[in-house]
Amino acid sequence: MKKYRVAVLGATGTVGQRFVQLLQGHPWFEISALTTSERSAGKRYGDAVRWHIGEQVPEAVAGLTLEPTRADLDADLCFSALPVHAAEEWEAALAATGHHVFSNVKNHRMDADVPLIIAEVNPEHAQAVKVQRAGRGWSGSLVTNGNCSTIHFALAAAPLHRAFGIRRAVVTTMQALSGAGYPGVASLDAVDNVVPFIGGEEEKMEAETMKFLGGWDGARFVPAEFPFSAHCNRVSVRDGHTETVSLELGGAPSAGAVIECLRAFRGRPQELALPSAPARPIIVRDEPDRPQPILDRDAERGMASVVGRVRPDAVLGMKFVVLGHNTIRGAAGASILNAELFAAEGLV
Amino acid sequence: MKKYRVAVLGATGTVGQRFVQLLQGHPWFEISALTTSERSAGKRYGDAVRWHIGEQVPEAVAGLTLEPTRADLDADLCFSALPVHAAEEWEAALAATGHHVFSNVKNHRMDADVPLIIAEVNPEHAQAVKVQRAGRGWSGSLVTNGNCSTIHFALAAAPLHRAFGIRRAVVTTMQALSGAGYPGVASLDAVDNVVPFIGGEEEKMEAETMKFLGGWDGARFVPAEFPFSAHCNRVSVRDGHTETVSLELGGAPSAGAVIECLRAFRGRPQELALPSAPARPIIVRDEPDRPQPILDRDAERGMASVVGRVRPDAVLGMKFVVLGHNTIRGAAGASILNAELFAAEGLV
Amino acid sequence: MKKYRVAVLGATGTVGQRFVQLLQGHPWFEISALTTSERSAGKRYGDAVRWHIGEQVPEAVAGLTLEPTRADLDADLCFSALPVHAAEEWEAALAATGHHVFSNVKNHRMDADVPLIIAEVNPEHAQAVKVQRAGRGWSGSLVTNGNCSTIHFALAAAPLHRAFGIRRAVVTTMQALSGAGYPGVASLDAVDNVVPFIGGEEEKMEAETMKFLGGWDGARFVPAEFPFSAHCNRVSVRDGHTETVSLELGGAPSAGAVIECLRAFRGRPQELALPSAPARPIIVRDEPDRPQPILDRDAERGMASVVGRVRPDAVLGMKFVVLGHNTIRGAAGASILNAELFAAEGLV
Amino acid sequence: MKKYRVAVLGATGTVGQRFVQLLQGHPWFEISALTTSERSAGKRYGDAVRWHIGEQVPEAVAGLTLEPTRADLDADLCFSALPVHAAEEWEAALAATGHHVFSNVKNHRMDADVPLIIAEVNPEHAQAVKVQRAGRGWSGSLVTNGNCSTIHFALAAAPLHRAFGIRRAVVTTMQALSGAGYPGVASLDAVDNVVPFIGGEEEKMEAETMKFLGGWDGARFVPAEFPFSAHCNRVSVRDGHTETVSLELGGAPSAGAVIECLRAFRGRPQELALPSAPARPIIVRDEPDRPQPILDRDAERGMASVVGRVRPDAVLGMKFVVLGHNTIRGAAGASILNAELFAAEGLV
Repeated sequence: MKKYRVAVLGATGTVGQRFVQLLQGHPWFEISALTTSERSAGKRYGDAVRWHIGEQVPEAVAGLTLEPTRADLDADLCFSALPVHAAEEWEAALAATGHHVFSNVKNHRMDADVPLIIAEVNPEHAQAVKVQRAGRGWSGSLVTNGNCSTIHFALAAAPLHRAFGIRRAVVTTMQALSGAGYPGVASLDAVDNVVPFIGGEEEKMEAETMKFLGGWDGARFVPAEFPFSAHCNRVSVRDGHTETVSLELGGAPSAGAVIECLRAFRGRPQELALPSAPARPIIVRDEPDRPQPILDRDAERGMASVVGRVRPDAVLGMKFVVLGHNTIRGAAGASILNAELFAAEGLV
Repeated sequence: MKKYRVAVLGATGTVGQRFVQLLQGHPWFEISALTTSERSAGKRYGDAVRWHIGEQVPEAVAGLTLEPTRADLDADLCFSALPVHAAEEWEAALAATGHHVFSNVKNHRMDADVPLIIAEVNPEHAQAVKVQRAGRGWSGSLVTNGNCSTIHFALAAAPLHRAFGIRRAVVTTMQALSGAGYPGVASLDAVDNVVPFIGGEEEKMEAETMKFLGGWDGARFVPAEFPFSAHCNRVSVRDGHTETVSLELGGAPSAGAVIECLRAFRGRPQELALPSAPARPIIVRDEPDRPQPILDRDAERGMASVVGRVRPDAVLGMKFVVLGHNTIRGAAGASILNAELFAAEGLV
Repeated sequence: MKKYRVAVLGATGTVGQRFVQLLQGHPWFEISALTTSERSAGKRYGDAVRWHIGEQVPEAVAGLTLEPTRADLDADLCFSALPVHAAEEWEAALAATGHHVFSNVKNHRMDADVPLIIAEVNPEHAQAVKVQRAGRGWSGSLVTNGNCSTIHFALAAAPLHRAFGIRRAVVTTMQALSGAGYPGVASLDAVDNVVPFIGGEEEKMEAETMKFLGGWDGARFVPAEFPFSAHCNRVSVRDGHTETVSLELGGAPSAGAVIECLRAFRGRPQELALPSAPARPIIVRDEPDRPQPILDRDAERGMASVVGRVRPDAVLGMKFVVLGHNTIRGAAGASILNAELFAAEGLV
Repeated sequence: MKKYRVAVLGATGTVGQRFVQLLQGHPWFEISALTTSERSAGKRYGDAVRWHIGEQVPEAVAGLTLEPTRADLDADLCFSALPVHAAEEWEAALAATGHHVFSNVKNHRMDADVPLIIAEVNPEHAQAVKVQRAGRGWSGSLVTNGNCSTIHFALAAAPLHRAFGIRRAVVTTMQALSGAGYPGVASLDAVDNVVPFIGGEEEKMEAETMKFLGGWDGARFVPAEFPFSAHCNRVSVRDGHTETVSLELGGAPSAGAVIECLRAFRGRPQELALPSAPARPIIVRDEPDRPQPILDRDAERGMASVVGRVRPDAVLGMKFVVLGHNTIRGAAGASILNAELFAAEGLV
């Protein structure tokens, strides 16, 4: 099988590094280009990147020359970890010139013809790229994945919404430092502290969740509709967002029924046995004090959402904790899984 | 004015140390006894205590000899930071022999004739000690303050409950390490981690809140009644519990009205100008990213609850963040303020 | 007594904030100007500063209008916490126009006519400002204090050098995050990590120590001369540098003699009873596990160096640990004490 | 090839867990017994252990029944992570009954007939077990590995001692929390703090280093002899000890020569291609700010010592930083490598 040639856009940042790391040895994708700002273009990747997710830049890519992002990149697929302004400039331009862009960036997530996909949750949204291509006259396409906090909530919420219907939900996040990139959060804001605010995060969670849990009617996205409230906090954890969830479910199922529903959940990535698909997209733990970031963030190579403490809630009926790796399943890994889904479904 | 002679029971632990620290230079109270387990009794306090809340044991108490807790302690008032088993053995016994015991320990908080008091919130519960003395045949009394997380929630909730009526509330706590005492939380559970569970804490928050926000009808406590759900988490912060709160209020007041209500709140301690009373029991901050433990836990010498981010909530109507020092206003400082209230009201 | 009018240059940074904080209520100095970069000039200090060393900007200064640094500032004394480039532009210019500049910045520390002073260690270096004024034609003066790590080492080393002569010393620092300012060290470099490198720090420690421990012969500084090696590391501590020291002393004194020498040490600030002088510039603790940042950094309001674990060293003869607050005695507090010394000695 | 049957003694502790983890899928060794205190004996390992080094107990061992340690264990080799008292009781007893005990515990490290081995450094000490068996009348043997801080220093020092001769060395450690086991260091001692003391650690480093770097003359160990001074500190790092080293070398080699010597170093484990042997026992990094725990502790699966910042030292001639994983190469991994060495050399 011929591999797809893939570019990582914004390859030197935190999420860019995760893309590069996760693409090592990928059976379907091979890196053909790494892009960066004009300032670093022309340098060896290994020299330009301040690698901070392990011992060192993988040898296979250390010698690649960084290119400026441009519309005629030599790549079939593009994984975008661009900053907002660069994403505005290049993502659509690349899609227009035939690239299939899988983006982590927030810019186009809520666009009416841009799929916002968690591969297990709403794979049918992928069909929207046909409307997108027709409407925009693109030969390529643009697909997004969500905010890191939203993905883990929505992944855990999806089977419950499908089985019971979510009527209302209140979520409090305790988010990891890596979610803000590098240098990101100042150490003086992190050590011995909590910051009870992350700019724009609550709004993103509330909007994106409705799109994830909604449908695609062949012409447009039909968002889910239920009151949703998020409190977003930054805590002193390197990787792994922890979220407490209280929600009201139709039919008021028991905790046992909720656990069974979560554990049984499988989606298209599992059916298709996609290379990056976790065997269990949602893991439910029985211990009273799990999930914890240090223990659970790497479950299923960082591709699972880990749920625990499923129990009745005096206000909304049901509550639990969900945790997941924010730069793997919450970012780069989610994009790669989306691209695998599109490849397997013949959409790229 | 003659000072009250006070004993600190369990003086070597985290909360015991806070009692000792806060009682230095107190205008009404002077330490007459420091108690500990049999094992350490007879030692100088300065030698036996592993002082961990500052440079060193205050000189005035370093030379005191630790005594075993016993019923005939030479003290008018007793501040109890005893472990659960010792509290079971000694608190009632001391009250029976004429001591006025102000306890931090959970044992008797929910007893039908034991006041559970936040001095600004439910000072009228103090009258219950008359029933208590009559019913138990005690010459002393036993008064409790609440769990550290509950106190800060209930202090912020009290004026809202009074003004609007709380109909439902969902709270997520991010609690400090010192709340578990010393050695308490293992560092391997704290560094780069969140533990989404604290044994018994959610139950305590739910039960105690109803007693705090309820009334005393002259014969018995009449608890508040509204659905309440708590998610309790331990985060990597030394001191200061941060809590996100979503609640439904009668009349659906605006955020502005809520802020005004919180800021205007004063209670008996402020009216009586008690020595440990904060000038402002509730501080509301306007910045988008406050309160934060490192910045706000010492507000009003650790005796205030600091609220921020008051804003509409899509599910329950209103939400905010509240933060407070867990071993000062959440423990030792709360007991001392209660004792001051009782002294000023002629109840001891 | 008329107060000196003082300006804080670079008032919004970490050290600038400390200057502002420490000058509150100062008996001799009153703030007449706060300066900042052109970008923030004209704003209220309370609005422009991201205050991160406590609950909020002191009320007395929150309403002051930030000015750009300029040569005709309305101030007798200037405390400089400027960035390197701004210091280059303004410190000499201000001294030329009659201001007495007390600088925290590294630029002029090693200049041949600029005193580098720890008030207890080498107050006689102050006389160099006469040569400075004559040589440069300045009506004001420029005085520096050292790097934060150097100050605490040199303060502890000074009485030993005087009593015994230091022949060689090896030092390893474990430095606090606040030493890099704000935002400074990225949280991803701090949490669960040590960075064994701080740019330029080892060179500064080695050079400045020799100047501190050297003399002034009336015309020039005569540096101390002994081999000195520093290893500088950043650890996950907010405030307080901890340093391990191995050194060879003339006469090979016992640990007891070293302790006695350190404890007996007093300098001009103590003789003159300067307002910011610690009663004990060096505190020696007897516990096996002290000093520790969390317990000892605030000793003597952050103005002392705290020594512990004085014991024989198999290689160099003697070893110990020294710890001190890096932004108080290691920076702003040191400058203020220097200014007090100059005022008391009639040099400003 | 038939696998050796191995027991892990003290299998529920921090080092015991590492043994269990590292033995999964081992090509030569298979776990036949897991021992624990009487209290937990009889339980399933998966139920009794508080697993804290990853998501969960490996499935292959979760179902094993914990046994009390006893002299007739069904095992060829025993990996001991026993507490000191249990080690005293059982290690010699097991060796007497024919077991080959590879111990992490300090008890017997300095015994005159017990090898203390780093497989690359002093494999020839293995011959001492013949004297041991003869002298003690044992059919088995007892072999130790060193303290976690010592191992990484000694591994980096060994090629330098061999090539140039170490004449003196001063070391400061910044040790990880996991080195104290679980619960080990209290979080209130770890967060925002350094503890400049670890009981007995400096003495262990000084004594063990001499044995590691010394010889075996066929009848007895001949220790290296040079003055050595250690300062041991606990910092807020989960895993990975960082050490600053200043040393005097014979012939005063250049930094380049030192780097070359370290990089070229290979030992018996590499010659024999032992299963747990790192390809490069010592990695030297060129970046100015490496090694760092978060980036380098897992180099070579935690089996390497990572050196950086090799440069001249003004006092002793040469200095550098060395870092290594304390519970892998510094403990369980070292024992396993020692056992592989003994197996390959026909000594078990």
